[in-house]
Amino acid sequence: MRDVYVIGCGMTVFGRAEGGLLDILEAAALAAMEDAALDHPIESVFVANMGAGILNHMSGVGSALVDRLCLYPTPAETIENGPASGGSAVKVGTYAVASGAVDVALVVGGEKMRGVTGWESTDFVATLSHPEAEYIYGVTLPALAGMFARLYMEKYGITHEHLAMVAIKNHKNAMKNPYAHIQQEVSLEGILHRPEAIVNNPPVAEPLRMFDCCPVSDGGAALVLCSEEIARKSDRPRVRIAGIGQATDTHAVHEREDPTELKAVRLASHLAFERAGVGPDDVDVAELHDAFTILEIAESEEVGFFEKGTGHLALERGETSLGGKLPINPSGGLKARGHPVGATGVAQLAEITWQLRGEADERQVKGAETGFTCNFGGFGNNVLCFVLRRE
Amino acid sequence: MRDVYVIGCGMTVFGRAEGGLLDILEAAALAAMEDAALDHPIESVFVANMGAGILNHMSGVGSALVDRLCLYPTPAETIENGPASGGSAVKVGTYAVASGAVDVALVVGGEKMRGVTGWESTDFVATLSHPEAEYIYGVTLPALAGMFARLYMEKYGITHEHLAMVAIKNHKNAMKNPYAHIQQEVSLEGILHRPEAIVNNPPVAEPLRMFDCCPVSDGGAALVLCSEEIARKSDRPRVRIAGIGQATDTHAVHEREDPTELKAVRLASHLAFERAGVGPDDVDVAELHDAFTILEIAESEEVGFFEKGTGHLALERGETSLGGKLPINPSGGLKARGHPVGATGVAQLAEITWQLRGEADERQVKGAETGFTCNFGGFGNNVLCFVLRRE
Repeated sequence: MRDVYVIGCGMTVFGRAEGGLLDILEAAALAAMEDAALDHPIESVFVANMGAGILNHMSGVGSALVDRLCLYPTPAETIENGPASGGSAVKVGTYAVASGAVDVALVVGGEKMRGVTGWESTDFVATLSHPEAEYIYGVTLPALAGMFARLYMEKYGITHEHLAMVAIKNHKNAMKNPYAHIQQEVSLEGILHRPEAIVNNPPVAEPLRMFDCCPVSDGGAALVLCSEEIARKSDRPRVRIAGIGQATDTHAVHEREDPTELKAVRLASHLAFERAGVGPDDVDVAELHDAFTILEIAESEEVGFFEKGTGHLALERGETSLGGKLPINPSGGLKARGHPVGATGVAQLAEITWQLRGEADERQVKGAETGFTCNFGGFGNNVLCFVLRRE
Repeated sequence: MRDVYVIGCGMTVFGRAEGGLLDILEAAALAAMEDAALDHPIESVFVANMGAGILNHMSGVGSALVDRLCLYPTPAETIENGPASGGSAVKVGTYAVASGAVDVALVVGGEKMRGVTGWESTDFVATLSHPEAEYIYGVTLPALAGMFARLYMEKYGITHEHLAMVAIKNHKNAMKNPYAHIQQEVSLEGILHRPEAIVNNPPVAEPLRMFDCCPVSDGGAALVLCSEEIARKSDRPRVRIAGIGQATDTHAVHEREDPTELKAVRLASHLAFERAGVGPDDVDVAELHDAFTILEIAESEEVGFFEKGTGHLALERGETSLGGKLPINPSGGLKARGHPVGATGVAQLAEITWQLRGEADERQVKGAETGFTCNFGGFGNNVLCFVLRRE
């Protein structure tokens, strides 16, 4: 395989977008192309999107984006893998460049989710669960996460305070990220201890409360990927996609031997590290898939940053905060940057690229050379991990 | 790029499927894996599908299929590119093998379309047209095809009889294809000349009548792709993906300089031939995207089989019939094999593989060594062409 580099990144401000899905994708794509500043044409476009059909009554979004960007006759397609659509599109784009078929590919992830009401969003997200065994019996994604959280907390002695600490940290980080959806600092007192906390932070799926769940966001993110030859000609810092790992698991969560094990996370991260020739200890900064606070803790263990059952202790000690030993989700993560599902996996790589380039401003992890992302599809049924390295 | 081979093919009988989308995909996948008879594991799964969100209220179909096949932890994603989703998934799967990331990939295309009524199908298909310029003004896909047909027929002196000849030929071919949706021989008299023809073959979008349009089908098709090393170890005949070409065009048909030119078809086929190192004259058998009869004629010219404006004459002379100089759509094509949109591009390659292996039974094109497919997305806004060669 040829080496593949991230040579440009772009993102829209996550939250409520004025325009439609194509406006979001277009804005992210243009930002990435401007950032890449290549004089080489885009040779292939891969769009990551989960909900165009259900939420926006559209198909052929890749073709529509090419039209918007006046990039025709450049090839394009849309890649869907639930909340890991972004990771999948980056993988497919990487293969396109690695194979030698193209030298420059544009990967654009985006979602326009806020055009539907709350319940419709839940219904939409549930389309990724087992079609015959979960949602039709009333199990939504937050419900799966709630059950997972309860088991995990009991098993490892994790408290509501630990969950809240993830939210507090990621909200704080998001205050330093101009692209973040949520710009609101929160405190343990405010979301847990004060009497009014039960109103401000109501239960969603016990033990998970509102501040344990990511918001529903519109947003887009884009990357320009290129071959080594193109990257060497550019004066942009060189960030290499050093390793990709992907793994699936049983579609129904209840079919897993131990539902507190995120086997696909463990396997995907292991493969990504193996291919990159580094280990979890080499990682300077990570973006994990904290769609629910418990997931950041669980993933930080499954990928090998901390021993199983100790992630919440590292969090408590501040090791995963900015300035700590291994900052996790400096962008604010899904929890506070937001989670436009198709965009998320791409946005994770954009954040890590900015970090490795030293372009993350106030949220910069000093001297970061190796970064890691975990993009969690389904409820852990399809996971992609990436290791990125500054050269 | 490493060479990539089709080592296994599978298909379901197109038409009205008893089961759901996953049943269709599973059946096609199992057939292809059985046909490939490899003792090497599937390392990646790519699902081609256009309508899961809108028609089946599902996402993450790739993950769900992996679960059905008990293939986890094998990676999977879904590729969407309207009616060219199949071609796009084959391309992406080819890149995965060509890059060296995997040695064996499974590409499965499928659609469950007949769960919705007639109008809903039209509405669904129209999601691929320009979201702001076509369908919202009442232009459906058949309407676009009708306008295209009228212009094309006027320009080149094509008659209704020529359109009917495409249907007659492809229906006849489908009678020899056990996977075909339509098993009904038709005649010029029956669908055009007899007084009752206007009832049996009513106008859909003039000048196109019912027998000028493909049916709405359920169905699935699958390919196992592999590296040269794996192909050489196998005792299956070796069919190589010799060339892939893809091109996009303006999303809105009315924005094209000359709407009777299918520029994306011309460009995609040119690239596929160039990469394969062969020309249109070397092709022994072709599968073209005859979603409407006029498209088979127009595509047969754009890809270079016949001079512009002469495709209908070659058709009339029987050159594109089985036994002719260049049989087109021996499978029955979209017109009669059927058009489960996500499956079509994959089904085209399966048919060509069977032809090049000499396994097409009664519809076999004798001694076929080089085959060609054209998978037409949108109304010509995203087209994939493939050249396959028997080695």
